[in-house]
Amino acid sequence: MMIAVAVLAAGRGTRMKSQLPKVLHPLGGRSLVEWVFQSVADLAPTHKIVIVGYAGDMVRQALQDLPQIQFVDQSKQLGTGHAVQQVMPLLENFTGDLLVLNGDVPLLRRETLRALLTTHQAHGNAATILTAQIPDPQGYGRVICDGNNIVKQIVEDRDCTAAQKQNRRINAGVYCFHYPELAEVLPHLKSENDQQEFYLTDAVNDLEPVMAMDVEDYEEILGVNDRQQLAAAYQILQRRIKQYWMMAGVTLIDPDSITIDDTVQLAPDVILEPQTHLRGQTSIGSGSQIGPGSYIENSQIAANVSVKFSVITDSQIAEASQIGPYAHLRGHSQIGSHCRIGNFVELKQATLGNHTKASHLSYLGDAHLGDQVNIGAGTITANYDGVRKHRTVIGHRSKTGANSVLVAPVELGEDVTVAAGSTVTADVPAQSLVIARARQVIKPGWQLSPPSAP
Amino acid sequence: MMIAVAVLAAGRGTRMKSQLPKVLHPLGGRSLVEWVFQSVADLAPTHKIVIVGYAGDMVRQALQDLPQIQFVDQSKQLGTGHAVQQVMPLLENFTGDLLVLNGDVPLLRRETLRALLTTHQAHGNAATILTAQIPDPQGYGRVICDGNNIVKQIVEDRDCTAAQKQNRRINAGVYCFHYPELAEVLPHLKSENDQQEFYLTDAVNDLEPVMAMDVEDYEEILGVNDRQQLAAAYQILQRRIKQYWMMAGVTLIDPDSITIDDTVQLAPDVILEPQTHLRGQTSIGSGSQIGPGSYIENSQIAANVSVKFSVITDSQIAEASQIGPYAHLRGHSQIGSHCRIGNFVELKQATLGNHTKASHLSYLGDAHLGDQVNIGAGTITANYDGVRKHRTVIGHRSKTGANSVLVAPVELGEDVTVAAGSTVTADVPAQSLVIARARQVIKPGWQLSPPSAP
Amino acid sequence: MMIAVAVLAAGRGTRMKSQLPKVLHPLGGRSLVEWVFQSVADLAPTHKIVIVGYAGDMVRQALQDLPQIQFVDQSKQLGTGHAVQQVMPLLENFTGDLLVLNGDVPLLRRETLRALLTTHQAHGNAATILTAQIPDPQGYGRVICDGNNIVKQIVEDRDCTAAQKQNRRINAGVYCFHYPELAEVLPHLKSENDQQEFYLTDAVNDLEPVMAMDVEDYEEILGVNDRQQLAAAYQILQRRIKQYWMMAGVTLIDPDSITIDDTVQLAPDVILEPQTHLRGQTSIGSGSQIGPGSYIENSQIAANVSVKFSVITDSQIAEASQIGPYAHLRGHSQIGSHCRIGNFVELKQATLGNHTKASHLSYLGDAHLGDQVNIGAGTITANYDGVRKHRTVIGHRSKTGANSVLVAPVELGEDVTVAAGSTVTADVPAQSLVIARARQVIKPGWQLSPPSAP
Repeated sequence: MMIAVAVLAAGRGTRMKSQLPKVLHPLGGRSLVEWVFQSVADLAPTHKIVIVGYAGDMVRQALQDLPQIQFVDQSKQLGTGHAVQQVMPLLENFTGDLLVLNGDVPLLRRETLRALLTTHQAHGNAATILTAQIPDPQGYGRVICDGNNIVKQIVEDRDCTAAQKQNRRINAGVYCFHYPELAEVLPHLKSENDQQEFYLTDAVNDLEPVMAMDVEDYEEILGVNDRQQLAAAYQILQRRIKQYWMMAGVTLIDPDSITIDDTVQLAPDVILEPQTHLRGQTSIGSGSQIGPGSYIENSQIAANVSVKFSVITDSQIAEASQIGPYAHLRGHSQIGSHCRIGNFVELKQATLGNHTKASHLSYLGDAHLGDQVNIGAGTITANYDGVRKHRTVIGHRSKTGANSVLVAPVELGEDVTVAAGSTVTADVPAQSLVIARARQVIKPGWQLSPPSAP
Repeated sequence: MMIAVAVLAAGRGTRMKSQLPKVLHPLGGRSLVEWVFQSVADLAPTHKIVIVGYAGDMVRQALQDLPQIQFVDQSKQLGTGHAVQQVMPLLENFTGDLLVLNGDVPLLRRETLRALLTTHQAHGNAATILTAQIPDPQGYGRVICDGNNIVKQIVEDRDCTAAQKQNRRINAGVYCFHYPELAEVLPHLKSENDQQEFYLTDAVNDLEPVMAMDVEDYEEILGVNDRQQLAAAYQILQRRIKQYWMMAGVTLIDPDSITIDDTVQLAPDVILEPQTHLRGQTSIGSGSQIGPGSYIENSQIAANVSVKFSVITDSQIAEASQIGPYAHLRGHSQIGSHCRIGNFVELKQATLGNHTKASHLSYLGDAHLGDQVNIGAGTITANYDGVRKHRTVIGHRSKTGANSVLVAPVELGEDVTVAAGSTVTADVPAQSLVIARARQVIKPGWQLSPPSAP
Repeated sequence: MMIAVAVLAAGRGTRMKSQLPKVLHPLGGRSLVEWVFQSVADLAPTHKIVIVGYAGDMVRQALQDLPQIQFVDQSKQLGTGHAVQQVMPLLENFTGDLLVLNGDVPLLRRETLRALLTTHQAHGNAATILTAQIPDPQGYGRVICDGNNIVKQIVEDRDCTAAQKQNRRINAGVYCFHYPELAEVLPHLKSENDQQEFYLTDAVNDLEPVMAMDVEDYEEILGVNDRQQLAAAYQILQRRIKQYWMMAGVTLIDPDSITIDDTVQLAPDVILEPQTHLRGQTSIGSGSQIGPGSYIENSQIAANVSVKFSVITDSQIAEASQIGPYAHLRGHSQIGSHCRIGNFVELKQATLGNHTKASHLSYLGDAHLGDQVNIGAGTITANYDGVRKHRTVIGHRSKTGANSVLVAPVELGEDVTVAAGSTVTADVPAQSLVIARARQVIKPGWQLSPPSAP
């Protein structure tokens, strides 16, 4: 059976108090609506339709790179039924199932939606709706079922009888329709109600059989309407991700203080110290210890690496290297194995061989270093002449003295020694000492002048 | 009706195990007793009286700058009734209401105290006391009321009958008295009880009518008696502040890890990353993203600024500038718009124009930089000659080379270039290159000496 | 009565998904099995026996330095009874009590085990077992007692009757045996059960009288079987430690974000800011304020010291010094009183007198500084010539200029001034100015070349 997905994304989300439409708010590396598309990814839908309204251009632009995405406009906000009506022109002759999702409900599990579809198709339902049993259903529409989960009625909270108020089964707002049947009733919805809106639940009430399926964990159906709910959704998402990695053999010391994007890959026996944040396409190899206080984004770290109090973006680190505290690696830097990048060292687009050290107070930008190089404290590659960036090359086993400057473009051969305090402006052949500093002069009997009278 | 406020602040707070008297312990930017005065700020009291005892001089000194504050001594700790007796000489001929508060109960909301006064005055009560319904009232004095909240009796926990033990309504220790009536009974208190103390509750029992008013959220009446309760109070305070800002349109990623003083102002669409701390008179403009791992105190940050892993105190940053990671701005620094302050850069009393960059390993102290200046990595303003601090001035579009030193007082004109590794000791006219370094000498065939034999 | 302790440490702990055997997993500075030995430390056991199996060599090696430790092998995992049978050859003629503990139950309090032994000996029991009343006992073996805590039966969960299922008293797996009686029944255990294992509970059922003693707080008996339980154990341990220090007069601002090893000592009126981590043999003096974002390991910090966003390992700091933000002290550095170590400063094996300052961007390694020394921004001790490390000595009141390099071995006398930008390679006598830099040359009319055409 072919599947079409329609996502309601036309609302403004006034309670977010934001310039950004609600469905575009980020939640751990993806917008809310992108999470919704994640949740249907393994259903391989043939149609992916986003119903846009408020700030529709922003939503279109944000999602334009999703494959096979289609947009329809709901220019006026006339209710969920009206929203789904807008989808009909895109589904002419479609005979499969239509899954209707909310763009602000980001935590649905793939397993849940698969189970919903399986239930729907196994029973040949006209519609199947996702429901949840929640402790405090006040304010939610109730779904009244018989003992076989056949839906007898969907009632708004305000219309509930006293008995119905006791029903804790609520409508999660996720619907699976056999589309040809929906298409027959959808055009006939009426807006004769308090809100003067067209309700999708009215369409459900016109179909049969309609079945309900409870979600296992009602956290999945959390809708994000304000920033507190956004924070709650992030906490749920993080708890899922962190539980997954702990059960996979990763030690998290103080898990509550750690955040991990769902795109990250961790090997067993990785140890994450407190206040560590792993984001984007990051992977960490076995035995590596990351943190405390570290932020790693889009970087690949091999086994047995140590990173303390450092920021690493878009870089690679080979095994058994030690980074930090207070190092900053960025711009596609590549660190060999057994390297040591120490405090107050920045690497930008730098390539280091194995067993190379830059331990203190250095900036290496647009630089290529060989193996066993030793960068002295305060060494700087002057890669920018004010107009262009230039490269520095340092051969194996070379050593720079403290506070030396390498003015790029410049190349040091192998086994070169740069004297402390030197500014190197021209290439240096292998096995040479290069020195560029003034001779020391001592002026005895010299004294700091006293402060002047006020 | 005029309002007088008396705050009990004479206790030592032995369980705090501190050199500091309990009411002076800090709680997020204010002492406990200062929070109490915050809670009455919009009642505009005509008298603000602090009853001091233990370390009275420290308390007087800490509070001396509060407007209109008065102090009375309670040299011996003879009970709450005795404490309020000390206030009487300051309230001769006072015919208004007296609000009695505890100096160690910092979380009362203004709304609560306003409601207490409104209730008190609307009913023409002799006294109105704040009460709370708590889940586990064991150990607290119970307030026994009739169905109209008229207080029939206040009973100590140890004197409660079995039936009274079931009463979960406790005395919050916050009293509103019609002062002329209180003044009649207060002198006649007796200390004929186990503790041989004069209880303010005895005065309450002598008055009528006395009414009780429940606080909505019993967290408000938390008293701080030890450091665990201090931590609990801070957590409650922080939860309030963070909920407020989330509902106002600020995204907090992992709110539990963030702290925000109540003096901070945040615009909608600010994003706060984990482990970010905002303190004092700090404001952040819309679209700015702060953190992770950042600390900002008494600083004003405009819109669309990014701050990562940095410390900023007493400074201003204009729009669209980027700070960090690992930057430190302090001492009334002022950063223009679209600036870039990068890693391992310290600014102290520095003024930067727009589009100016100091990206790596620099110290700029007592410096004035124009627009579009580019500070090379390792550049240092030598502002201190060992006796005095001097200023450095750098004109528009000037550029300093790596590891250059600007020995203040010194002025660089516009479009100046400082060669890498130069120490500049005298002023440089506009459109000049300044260079102060030795020529490079190469000694071929040079080799590091091997380690000496042990 | 003499005490022997046997610790079961033969299991692999498959659910940890680790190369490390379960009992060696670290929990806040000690392995799980080391925590078990901590819990019996004040019982002064005459025998400390570890029953090893999976990765036995790793366990032996990890524990080899514990005094008086003995190991026995349980080469096949044939049950708890079989494990304790392996201990018998080491306890020939032993007439005291044998305490049997699990190597993966790290949170037992010393008080609990003392109480267990006291109960055991006071009643002359053949065996006494530790039990716990837990809210959800499903899956645990139940201990059925009479009203005097005499054990009538120990039943596996799967063998419980409906009535026994209601019994919430579970077996904690901690046993105290009068050894001569145990030794008689232990050889006769049978493995005629589903698992074909020899159960220690069968031995218990063969003895009498056997008594049960409930643990006060069932968190103590938490077993660590996976990384989630490891994280839970760490959280419990941390809560204990932090509550202890708060009640001892230490302020923790946001305690949940702080970690403190149980080996740390804190004075009253210490303030710990968020995201602070204190590890190993660390002590902090009264009035010191540590954090936010700081990590201190094996370091002794005196009174009234301030540390912000810094990393300090293996070092000492005297009173009233200020460290950070972004300082890194390591390698047995010793800081005098009233010093100031500022941002981007690293100290390695450096000794500083009193009132000495290194405020910005410096590396001081293998250095000895006197009192009132002022280290200019960017000063570096070049302590490594590529082969050996050398020392730098700086006398009282000396001052180094910005970006100066001191090439060790080198000694500066008292009251020396090093000019900014100088590289000092030879000793400097007292009261001298040393200068080693090129004269400044200005080339007017100089302009950066424009970008080349693409």
